[in-house]
Amino acid sequence: MTSTPDATTPAGGLDPAIAARLKRGADGLVPAIAQQYDTGEVLMLGWMDDEALHRTLTTGRCTYWSRSRQEYWVKGDTSGHVQHVKSVALDCDADTVLVKVDQTGAACHTGDRTCFDADVLPLHDS
Amino acid sequence: MTSTPDATTPAGGLDPAIAARLKRGADGLVPAIAQQYDTGEVLMLGWMDDEALHRTLTTGRCTYWSRSRQEYWVKGDTSGHVQHVKSVALDCDADTVLVKVDQTGAACHTGDRTCFDADVLPLHDS
Repeated sequence: MTSTPDATTPAGGLDPAIAARLKRGADGLVPAIAQQYDTGEVLMLGWMDDEALHRTLTTGRCTYWSRSRQEYWVKGDTSGHVQHVKSVALDCDADTVLVKVDQTGAACHTGDRTCFDADVLPLHDS
Repeated sequence: MTSTPDATTPAGGLDPAIAARLKRGADGLVPAIAQQYDTGEVLMLGWMDDEALHRTLTTGRCTYWSRSRQEYWVKGDTSGHVQHVKSVALDCDADTVLVKVDQTGAACHTGDRTCFDADVLPLHDS
């Protein structure tokens, strides 16, 4: 585990009442949708464990678990493309997180505003 | 596997060029975000395998794989709360689907418009 952004935050600091409800996948993660709070754009989907959700709720910065790098990832720490957290909600099954954010610059590492801009699939009748 | 909505649609009918790019989880599924196409509301998150994505692209109706029931699920077939497909996109990593839909009625089985209406988590400073 990497060091916490706030050294006073204990690991596993997620509110036990939330942790008890959260339904994680086999890998201990839940999908987290980041949406621009005012325009409604769906920016990206990341993954959170309990600690990433805790940090997202308490630091004001959207924090994911990077499955490829196997470490916490504070969005924008490297790129400057920060996600300031406006609100966080669980879905009806408590197995998905929706984070409304104010996205600085591009959400996508390709430079696109969202991760869904570049690859629109063709619809066709069967 | 359940019978296809269109009996002429072969199983495994997803365009091979899309199937070759799609990055599935260990369970063979990708998360699929449903968003109301005009208001931008994030309605729900479901899961798709290749066949569910194929049906979503070709039938005009959003189709998921139900992890709890282990069967294909044409949204609205039971409830009448249909999702008419407006557009489908993959994200930059080809491991998430965004479906813009026109949602009839409530997206959530609880009767809420979206699955994220009822459980907003408190934000607080650490």
